[in-house]
Formats: sequence, C-alpha cells, structure tokens
Amino acid sequence: MDRRNLLKVGGALSIGAALSGNIGAKTGKENFASPRPRLEEKVAVDLSSDGRVLSPFEYAQLLQKLIEQDPRIQDQYGRGGAVEKLERKFVKITGHESAVFLPSGTLANQLAIKVLSGARSKVFVQEQSHVYRDESDAAQQVHGKRLMPLAVGKANFTLEDLQSAIGNFRRNEVFQTEIGAISIENTVRRRQEEIFDLGEIARVSAFARERGIGMHLDGARLYMASTWAGVAIEKYASYFDTVYISLYKYLGASSGAILTGTRETISKVRKWMKLYGCVMYQNWPNALVALHFLNGFEDRMKRASERSIELFRMLNKIEGLQVESLARRSNTSELKLTGIGARALAGKLWTDHKIRVRPTGTKSILMKVNDTLLNLEPERIAKAFKESCAS
Amino acid sequence: MDRRNLLKVGGALSIGAALSGNIGAKTGKENFASPRPRLEEKVAVDLSSDGRVLSPFEYAQLLQKLIEQDPRIQDQYGRGGAVEKLERKFVKITGHESAVFLPSGTLANQLAIKVLSGARSKVFVQEQSHVYRDESDAAQQVHGKRLMPLAVGKANFTLEDLQSAIGNFRRNEVFQTEIGAISIENTVRRRQEEIFDLGEIARVSAFARERGIGMHLDGARLYMASTWAGVAIEKYASYFDTVYISLYKYLGASSGAILTGTRETISKVRKWMKLYGCVMYQNWPNALVALHFLNGFEDRMKRASERSIELFRMLNKIEGLQVESLARRSNTSELKLTGIGARALAGKLWTDHKIRVRPTGTKSILMKVNDTLLNLEPERIAKAFKESCAS
Amino acid sequence: MDRRNLLKVGGALSIGAALSGNIGAKTGKENFASPRPRLEEKVAVDLSSDGRVLSPFEYAQLLQKLIEQDPRIQDQYGRGGAVEKLERKFVKITGHESAVFLPSGTLANQLAIKVLSGARSKVFVQEQSHVYRDESDAAQQVHGKRLMPLAVGKANFTLEDLQSAIGNFRRNEVFQTEIGAISIENTVRRRQEEIFDLGEIARVSAFARERGIGMHLDGARLYMASTWAGVAIEKYASYFDTVYISLYKYLGASSGAILTGTRETISKVRKWMKLYGCVMYQNWPNALVALHFLNGFEDRMKRASERSIELFRMLNKIEGLQVESLARRSNTSELKLTGIGARALAGKLWTDHKIRVRPTGTKSILMKVNDTLLNLEPERIAKAFKESCAS
Amino acid sequence: MDRRNLLKVGGALSIGAALSGNIGAKTGKENFASPRPRLEEKVAVDLSSDGRVLSPFEYAQLLQKLIEQDPRIQDQYGRGGAVEKLERKFVKITGHESAVFLPSGTLANQLAIKVLSGARSKVFVQEQSHVYRDESDAAQQVHGKRLMPLAVGKANFTLEDLQSAIGNFRRNEVFQTEIGAISIENTVRRRQEEIFDLGEIARVSAFARERGIGMHLDGARLYMASTWAGVAIEKYASYFDTVYISLYKYLGASSGAILTGTRETISKVRKWMKLYGCVMYQNWPNALVALHFLNGFEDRMKRASERSIELFRMLNKIEGLQVESLARRSNTSELKLTGIGARALAGKLWTDHKIRVRPTGTKSILMKVNDTLLNLEPERIAKAFKESCAS
Repeated sequence: MDRRNLLKVGGALSIGAALSGNIGAKTGKENFASPRPRLEEKVAVDLSSDGRVLSPFEYAQLLQKLIEQDPRIQDQYGRGGAVEKLERKFVKITGHESAVFLPSGTLANQLAIKVLSGARSKVFVQEQSHVYRDESDAAQQVHGKRLMPLAVGKANFTLEDLQSAIGNFRRNEVFQTEIGAISIENTVRRRQEEIFDLGEIARVSAFARERGIGMHLDGARLYMASTWAGVAIEKYASYFDTVYISLYKYLGASSGAILTGTRETISKVRKWMKLYGCVMYQNWPNALVALHFLNGFEDRMKRASERSIELFRMLNKIEGLQVESLARRSNTSELKLTGIGARALAGKLWTDHKIRVRPTGTKSILMKVNDTLLNLEPERIAKAFKESCAS
Repeated sequence: MDRRNLLKVGGALSIGAALSGNIGAKTGKENFASPRPRLEEKVAVDLSSDGRVLSPFEYAQLLQKLIEQDPRIQDQYGRGGAVEKLERKFVKITGHESAVFLPSGTLANQLAIKVLSGARSKVFVQEQSHVYRDESDAAQQVHGKRLMPLAVGKANFTLEDLQSAIGNFRRNEVFQTEIGAISIENTVRRRQEEIFDLGEIARVSAFARERGIGMHLDGARLYMASTWAGVAIEKYASYFDTVYISLYKYLGASSGAILTGTRETISKVRKWMKLYGCVMYQNWPNALVALHFLNGFEDRMKRASERSIELFRMLNKIEGLQVESLARRSNTSELKLTGIGARALAGKLWTDHKIRVRPTGTKSILMKVNDTLLNLEPERIAKAFKESCAS
Repeated sequence: MDRRNLLKVGGALSIGAALSGNIGAKTGKENFASPRPRLEEKVAVDLSSDGRVLSPFEYAQLLQKLIEQDPRIQDQYGRGGAVEKLERKFVKITGHESAVFLPSGTLANQLAIKVLSGARSKVFVQEQSHVYRDESDAAQQVHGKRLMPLAVGKANFTLEDLQSAIGNFRRNEVFQTEIGAISIENTVRRRQEEIFDLGEIARVSAFARERGIGMHLDGARLYMASTWAGVAIEKYASYFDTVYISLYKYLGASSGAILTGTRETISKVRKWMKLYGCVMYQNWPNALVALHFLNGFEDRMKRASERSIELFRMLNKIEGLQVESLARRSNTSELKLTGIGARALAGKLWTDHKIRVRPTGTKSILMKVNDTLLNLEPERIAKAFKESCAS
Repeated sequence: MDRRNLLKVGGALSIGAALSGNIGAKTGKENFASPRPRLEEKVAVDLSSDGRVLSPFEYAQLLQKLIEQDPRIQDQYGRGGAVEKLERKFVKITGHESAVFLPSGTLANQLAIKVLSGARSKVFVQEQSHVYRDESDAAQQVHGKRLMPLAVGKANFTLEDLQSAIGNFRRNEVFQTEIGAISIENTVRRRQEEIFDLGEIARVSAFARERGIGMHLDGARLYMASTWAGVAIEKYASYFDTVYISLYKYLGASSGAILTGTRETISKVRKWMKLYGCVMYQNWPNALVALHFLNGFEDRMKRASERSIELFRMLNKIEGLQVESLARRSNTSELKLTGIGARALAGKLWTDHKIRVRPTGTKSILMKVNDTLLNLEPERIAKAFKESCAS
C-alpha cells in the first residue's frame, strides 16, 4: 500500500499519528507514553487518542487532493472560501444562526462566556472542566469573570446542585452580583470523556433561560457524546446559546475551533477576535481538511462504536485481558492486564501490527475508540492482541 | 449630662449610635434589628456593634474640639495635614515602611491584592472572607484575579490546607499559572469575629515568603484580634506585606481605611487610587477623628475585655440568662435567654437604661464588647439586665 | 467680628482660604503662589480661586449649625440622609432623572464616559480638557477608551471640527471602530475658564443623538458658565446625557462630585463605584455643606458677576492697573500692572485688607470672581487696591 | 511548463496570485482592482503587491515538496518542529535573544507594546501607523495603553518631534503619567512604503534607552526597508527591543508573524498569547513555507530592486509612460500614463503577458517591486508594456 492509497482507506483518510502521548508528556506522564510512529510509518488502528492527527505528509497530500476537487477555497481575514463554507456547514449541523472559525478552543470558550455574560460577573462551570482548570485563568485575568465551580471531582451536576450553589453565595450578599452564564463541558476530558446527562441539560437550560442566563456548551468532543449517548448534535445545541466544537481533536485540521450561536453573539465574537489579535490572514488549510472529515463522520463514529462492542467482547475472552467499559464514558475504556505488562503489550501491538495503544499504568491501557477502528475487522484486531499477549 | 460633657467620658468620646442594625437590614434580618436611638438620644453602653458610630452632632462637636487643639490639619489630594499624620501613626503602629488613607476597606483589600500579586493570577483567601464574598467580584471583574477559597465555612485554615489546595490545581495543569498572594481576614466577620491562629499565620507566612508570594492581612477589625489574642498589632503586621485596618468600624471616622506596606507597594497603591478615581480633595474630617480615637485605644479595649469577663460572670448568675462566650470569637458572644424574649429584653434595656443590644433570634442576643463598656460599672450593667428580666 | 459671626456674612458662610496656591505649586508655579492665610485668619475677599475652601474650624462650625437645624442627615454606603437629599436637589436643578454622589470629579467623568460609551471605544474630548490631560490616562488604562482630541489648544470646537475628525479616522479604516461618547468641558479650566458656546453644544448634541452617541458634560465649574453666559443649568443639562458638577470647587464640601443622568445610567455608575472600591461608609459631612451653599447660589453668583463689572471699571481708573476681561472667559480676568510688582501688590492687599489675589507673573495678577466679592462693597475693594498701589 | 516545474523558477517558487486587490476592495477602491487570476492560471510577474500569495494548489504542492525533504516538522502548541526552527532562524537574522511565532501582526504589535511598556501608559507611534489606525483600538480597549501620535500625515518623525510631544503633555500635568514604549513602523504602509530614516532611529533609540523606554519596530515589511535603504535586518534590530516581521506579506505563509526580543520579553509574550486564546495546536504549514522563502530572500530582493531600476529606465523611454520613483518609498512607485488608460493597460498586460499591475486611477498604475520581477528579463517586461501601450 503506497502513500497515495493510504488516503483511500474507508472512503476517507484514516491514518493517525496521535499526539496524545505528547500531551501526557506535558503533564508528567512520560513513563507510559505510547510508542510514537516515525512520520513515514503507517498506523493501522489508533486506539490511543480521540481521533486522527495526520502526519504532515498526509496532510499536504490530502490538501492537494481536495484542492483539485475545488480550487476556490481561499479565505481572507476570516471571510470567504473554505472557512465560510465550514461555518455554513456548522450552522446546518447545530441549527444555530451563525458560526465562526476560531484559532483555538480556549478562545471559543472564553469569548462565548464573555459575550453571553456581558456585564454580569458570575459563570458556573464544572470544577473538572477545561474552562475552569486548563485555560490559564483567562476568564479572570482577561475577561473579568468569576468562575463558580460545580460538581467537584465529577463530570455531572444537577439543577439542584446549581440552585444550592446560587443560594450559598447569595446568603448575606450585601452588594448583589449577577450570574451571566452556565458552561457545560460534554464530554468531560478530565473525567475520561464522561457524558453529561441530557435530561439534566434540559432542566438546567430551562432554569437558565427563564432568568436570561446564557448557556454555553464546551463540545470540544461533542461528537463523542453524540455517538455514545445517541443524541444528535442539533439536539444538544438546542439547549445552548453557544456551542464550541474542536476541529483538530478528531476532524483532522491542524488547528481551529468552531463556535456557533445567534447572529448577534457571533458578530460580537468576531469583534473580540479582532481585538485580541486572533484574526488571521488565511485559514483555508484548516477549514478544508475539517470539511473533508465532516463528511459522513457521524456515521463512521456510529459504526466504530458498534465495532468496539464486538471488539471488547472478543478481548474479554482472551486470558489476562479485561476491558472496563462504562457507557457514560463515551469512547474511553480501560484495559486491565493480569499477565503481560502494559508497555510490553503496547510495544508488540505497534511493532507487529501497527496498532497503537497508550499504557496508563504498569497493568492498564487506555482504549479510545475512534474511526480508525474501521480500518481493520474486530477479529483481526482481537487476534493481534491475542498474539501479542501470547508471545 | 449635657452634650458637651458626653464628650469627656473616659477621656474620650464614647457614645455610640451603632448602624449595625442597618447592615442587618440589608441582609434580611430586619426582624431582630436593635432599637435605633434617635440622634439626640444618649447611649450609655452599646453592646450591639464593634464600635461607636458617632451621631452627626457628636461628630461635628468633636471635630471642633480637635481643631481648637491643632488647626493645621488640612490635607489636599491625600497629602499633608491630618491624613499624613494618621498615615505616620500607622507606620509606627504596624512597623511597616509606609501607609496610605483609602476611602474604603474594599479598595484597601483589592489594591493590596492587586499590587502584591502583580502579573500572577491566583490569590488564596478564606471562603468566608469579605474579599471572597462581599466585594462584588471586584477582584475578578476589575483586577483580573482568581480568588482561590480555603477553609470552607470556617475562619481558619492551616498550611497543610493551603498546600493541598495548591497541589489540587497543579494536578495536570498544562499551562502553569502562578500564585500572587495570600489574604487572611482576622478577625473573620462572617464567623462572628473568630480570630485566626497566630501560629498558623507564622507558618503560612514563612511558606509564602520563601516563594515570593505576597501576604495581605484584612485587619478591618484587627484590634479585636489583638485585644482578645493578646497579640500586638505590630506582631501581626510582621508576618504580612500589607495590612488594612478600618477607620470607621471602631475608630470613629465617618469613612476610610488605612493600608500599610513597603514604600514601593504603597506608592503603587497611590497610583492605582488615582486611576480608579478615588483620590479625594480633602479627608481631614475622617483622619482627625480616627487619630483621636487611636489615642489609648489598645488600653481601653484591654480594659473593656477584662470588664466583659466580670460582666458575663454576673449575667450568668441571673436566672434565664446564659452567655456563650468563645475566646477565639474575640469580642462577640451570644446571650441565650430561657424566660424573657429577646425583643422585650432589648426594649427594656434601651428604654430604661440606654443600653443597646441586638436580638439575633427570639431567644438570643448578640453581645459585642467595645469600649463603651467602660462607661458604666459591670455591676450597674448587670443590675440593668436583672431589672429588665424581672419586670 | 468673632468666628461665629463670620458664618453669618451674606446669610451664608463666605470666608475662603483658597488652596489654589497649592495647586499652582504642583504645577511648578510656586514662585507666584498667593499668600496663604494662617488657618485662624479671616479672609475678607478672595479673588484667587473659583470659590471658597473653608478652614477646618469654619467647616466644623458650619456642620454643627446645620445639624442643629436638622440632625437626621446620616447616610450609609451612599444611601439616605444628606447624600440622598443632595442627589434629589441636583435632579431638580438639572432636570435629569437621577443623581449620584461620587468621591471625585475624575471618577464622575470616567464613569460617565464608560457607561455612555459601553462597548464602543472612541470618545471625543477637547484636547485641553481635564479628561484628556489631567486624569492619569484612566480612560485608557482602566476603562479601555480611546480619547480623540478636538480643538487643539482651544476651548471650543464646532460640529464641523467633529465631523472632520470622524472623517479622518474613518479614511481607509479596515476594521471599523465605533464612537461611544462626546465629552465637553464647560468652563474649560486650562483655557482660563472659557465658556463653551451654547449654540455649538446644541448642534453637536443633535448630531450625537441621531447616532446614539452619548453626550457628557464635564461641568465641574458649570455654575461659572451658567452665570456668565446667562444660561440655566437645566438648559445646559438638556443637551447632555450626563452632567458632572463639583462639590468642592465653589460649593464648600471638603470633597465630592455629583453626576446626573437617566436612572439606568446612574444605576450602572453606582455598580461601577462599588467595583472600583469608591463606595464609602458615610458622606454626610460633604453633602450637608454642599446643600447649604447651593441655597441661593445662582443668585449670589449673578450679583457677584455684576459687582465685578463695577469693580473692574473702578480698577481701570487707577493708574498702573488694567483689567483684561473677556466675557467668554467667565469668572477669570487678568490684571496687568505697569508700576507696582505683582508680589508686592498681593502682599499689601493681604496684609492690610485681607484681600487675596494670585500673581501669575511679575506684572500680572489673576482675578477670579466668586461670591466672596459680596463681602465688601466694590468701592472699598477698589480703594484697597489704590492704597496698595500707592504705598 | 507544468505545475511541478513552476516550483523551480528562480530556485524557489515564484508565482503569485496577489490578494491585494481584495484589500483594496475593503478600503473602497474596487474600481481600480487589478485583474485577479483564476486559481489555475500562471502569473509571470506580479507588480501589484509586496509579495507573493500562493494559490492553494501551489501551497499544497510546495508543502509536499518541503515535507519530502524533511518530514520532522510537526509542532505542538507553539513548540518544536518547523515553528521552532523558524523562530531560531529569526533569532539569527535579528541578533535578538528569542523569537515567537504569532498568528497575526496585530497581535505581535500589541503584545510587544504591552510587554515593553508594562505598567506605564503612554506609547508613542506614528499617526499614520498600523498600530494607531488599523488595529481596532486594541491598544486602548484590551491593553489599556494610550497611543500618542507623532508625524501627522507623514512617515517620519525626529527626536525633536518626540521631545516636543513629551513636553506638551507634561505641561502642567498634575498626576504624572509615564512613557512605556515608542513604536516605529518601517516601511510605512499608509505612506506608500516610505522608509523611516536610520539616523533618526538611532537618535530616538539612544534617547529611549537612557530613560528605560521600550523600542518596538513594526517591521511587517522590514525587508523592503532593508533592501532599498541598504541596511541589514540585524542593524535595524539593534536599535529595538522587539521586532515584528510578517510571514505572509512576502514570505508566502498563509498566516503568521514573528516577534523577536529578549528571552524575558518573549516569554511574557507567550504567556499573553495563551491568555488571549491565540496559542494554536499546530502551525507547521505556515512556518515551513516561510522558512522556505527566507532562503536567499535578501539576495533575491536585492537583485529585484536592481532590475527594477533597469526596467523603469526602459519604461521611461516608452511614449506615454513615466515612472515616478522615490528612493525613500522603497518598493513602491507610480506609473503615470498620458495616452492609454490604466485599466486598458492592466488588462492587456495580464491577458497577453501574465503580468499583473494594479491601477490606482484612470491614468496611474501602482508598481510594486518584489522577487517575481526575477522571473522575466527587464527587456521582456518592457517589451510587454510597449506592446500593450501600442495595441
């Protein structure tokens, strides 16, 4: 199989060289980083991350193929071309009025919160959320917001949790402050991609809308929630005023995020983007790739999730392997080992079968389902695990 | 006793018309507000608040007396006159290099935190502190700080609590944020003036100084801590980079706060005061009165606290009265009633004896010790309580 | 005349110990500072500043007199008492819906501009205005506004000047910015209290209102414009959304400013005051004195301006004296000397006649008209000048 | 010549499809926009803009070629790969300690000014500069800076102009503000790429450094100044604390900017990038292309400028053509027409010769020199002009 043919697997490019290992590295987990392929190596199935990160070569090759299909894709300062096309696509997907391409998910979250809350200071978020813990205190330092944590150490909170938190800060409050927005991350990265309950979203949303409080969805990995909860993106979006979806975590772009909302909201977001110096000259290389992967993506994810069930059943029959899979954790499971060590198994899977997995301990391996699972039949993958255990 | 003579009690003005009842009103506690004296009425002893609030008439009279003693007290835009004199006085009291008069305690806290933390975002505070709950989210909205709560529902935290909170946010933090300051409120208003432990202050201070983290003391009521813990103001100040002390809560000024620190810190605070529009044309009317009450204040408070012990012992011998006094709560105790109702008792104490107390429930009364306790002998106060219970 | 009687001159306190000399000192003009009275000294007529600055003794005495008339004047955190009364008074004076007491004129200007302009960045101001030159760049540093200078080196600008300035920045502007407010200072302090033309105010106001641009009047010394232009305060106010008037420049308060506007605007201003730490515990000592001086103030100013015409005519007959008076400069004229030196004349006027004037050069003296001019007959003042020149 | 071979012209890709026409469109100049090539069309010489904008197809093709040479170019969150390589390259070019890739030139300018000025508010800039007029008031709205305009309507200012401007705002300034930085744009876009005088840069720089004032160079088009003034980039950089150079205006990237400075400055810039949400996942596609075009760029520009002299001499011999070329305007000249109309000439040059020029009026054409001039001999270009005039 030469490079060009690689692009055709599964009707779409499906070769991943996940960088998740690197992310782990930054957080002090180098010890168990997955084996990183040299750039020219082929990956058959990548179970180590939420989605594909194309190698530069694949990226350039894909760009060329897509440009041959339609060369009129140049954008300028955020207008026109593939960028505008992508924005229109997400308007359709979410049912929101308007969409904007942003250089990062952090910016998408921060500007959504800023614009939705306006002059009001308090914004409720999950204590485990990206907004609360992984955006360098931008909400406070740059946007003057007070993030109010809910669901300490957990993914989900209830309407009652929210009401009780409001009651708590209101107690004896002399100069009354106002609540501007509620942000919900779904799935929750720090809780191993746990899904936020749809029913609770509906209740919180009704509560918020009665009071004019903005609702933001940090849906960086919303397609994971959508696939595993069986809830359409549009359904989720209907409960929120703004929705952010990542373009690079599983949609192949080298960078970028989409934020949707009303025309008025998104127009304000565009103004702030300019003010923060984040309007770039051109972004068609990112938009074009994301547009490509969006085609049929929901369907591919659905099939991958179905196949993962088969696969895990097969793995559980292999001695020394036990997959701990929780439905609410969407695409993320843990493989517990009793015989072979995690590093040894990961090494063999990679060397002999070009299957990537990420050890998370001496006897445990992270199993992330994504559409590279469609590259091989479950039987073949299970066989690879069996052989690697045995040898 | 005519008005003029009132000014001479105890070598200093000691008539209070506490506004604490009003503060209660704002927080939904009108039901148990203490009887408020008409302005021309004399108050013999005021057990309802931390200190005296002079009536306008007393205020003007006192000003005139003080100006007769020294007329050269005019300040201008925060320089010279009584304001400068007051600042020098607090330099001496705290042992810090410099001091500045500010229009409010909120500004003192906020600017201390802002200047001490500089470009660093995180500031640790008690969850029950004024900075965290009662300053309208100014730290976040205006100064771009992230307040990190410690000691949920309590007055005190330990060095270990702090370390554990740091460990918690550092866990898997990708883009590292920095800790700029630690603020400690002492005594803690929302915990009924509980004192923060000196030993723990010393440990936290040592930890902070090793790391270049600023230490701020919200000592709005520091004299309460000082009196009941038996720790000199200067001793407390030695552990902190900035100290705020209120001028109106018990030092008689109609407004104002003092903030002390290094010359560099205070010079930055002055610059920000100007930028926030808080530099006023003249403040001698506030500074002069505070200077007056500072004379001998520590001694008067010490005697008042000693007398309160006597008084409470006497009250405890009266049937139906029980004082619940906790040393760590500084000047604040609770009087539990078994017979007479709180409102009835408060009414009689006021009408018959010009003693003010504040009911906090149907069977409970707040007992705040301040230097008006020196106006009457304990025996006479106890007798007043006894008569009011009996009738 | 003893101290108490001093208070009765002209039915109101009218003795000033102007601090303008001090202000001069800050700007490097110490050489020509007017002789400053010791605090116990009486000032007969003060021609050195816009209005009276009471000595502390006079201040305290006046407070006491006013409290005797009505003791129910205590405010708390900006609500109730004399502060509320003063705010209601200015609602009546300006015809605006609402008013708020602020600690400084700088804060009044800055918050007016901030609230009126909202999310829009550009604010047009006179290049010679206080907002543009004397507020420490607070508009940019704290409030994120871009001040656009008009009328370089002058007091007045026209609608055409404004339109041309707008045209200039719009030329080839790629990302369009918006105009939030126009601020007009009247009278203009740096242009020797020159009056801004009413007709031009009307034209600019019409232009602004059509476009939803806010109009702010920095009327620190609006009573000067009102007196000399013969335009009622309410008339001026009708063209503006917010009006600031100083309480200490000629209304006797030791500090403070009033800002008027719609209920919505003033309510936002109150919120920001709290956030900037400028809400003080009590301000009745300032509000009470300003309320007092407001009584009959317009009438006193009118009479003073009339008397000044007589006086200047008399002075012009004295050899060696020449008053240069420009109607558009409101209360400020210059006295040119040909014989005697300015310092010598000022010294004699003060020592022999208790008349204060401020030299601005070796042969020139500032002549500011205020209501202390009513304390002596023009003839007597002119005689004092004559004697001082002669000796 | 097929697509692949196109890449080899001049040892580097040198086909441009300038988007300058679009930029013109935004500023109301649609009438004279240059003919825009369809994306598959070849451009022989492009005299309409400062540099090449690759078509998407060329871009993807170039990426692929470069990746084949070195596939290890992936970056992550601004670290590693081609991005780091590019940063190191600019460290060498400028002689500064450190460099950082930023998504936009606006961000580069704003963060340079922000970090250099720190707590000081005033920043001097040219009135015609991009920072002053084309960055949406970000300096004021986001960074709290006050931009002070110099050289109204001109490209250059002198040290004396600066000193006089400082003297002007210092006059009678009561609360002293501080000057944080001076920013110089070179070449000046709004003044047709006029060069800022090196001698004056040296004087201003010496003045600034004595006073600790930061010096920023907006060198978006610094290579133009460098080529036409004959001053090395490193020489320019030696007078500044920070230098920004654009990556897309003539270095081929689809987006991006480089900012250089001390390690401390650049480290702060990186922190703020994160806080403003501008740290992107990957940027190797931009960095790689810019790195490619940097190879030999100075030499190509030098040759192009030399050839332009020859070309313009030849054009001046053609009847009806007159090139107005000013050395201080670097790469930008104007071609005045007396016979043929500008649109007609541009149309013929494009249709018959694939030479792009941009009409700026009915009888004038913009002539921008860039390295596409090397694609054809001057004689051949002149001949094309002659034929187009004649026909």
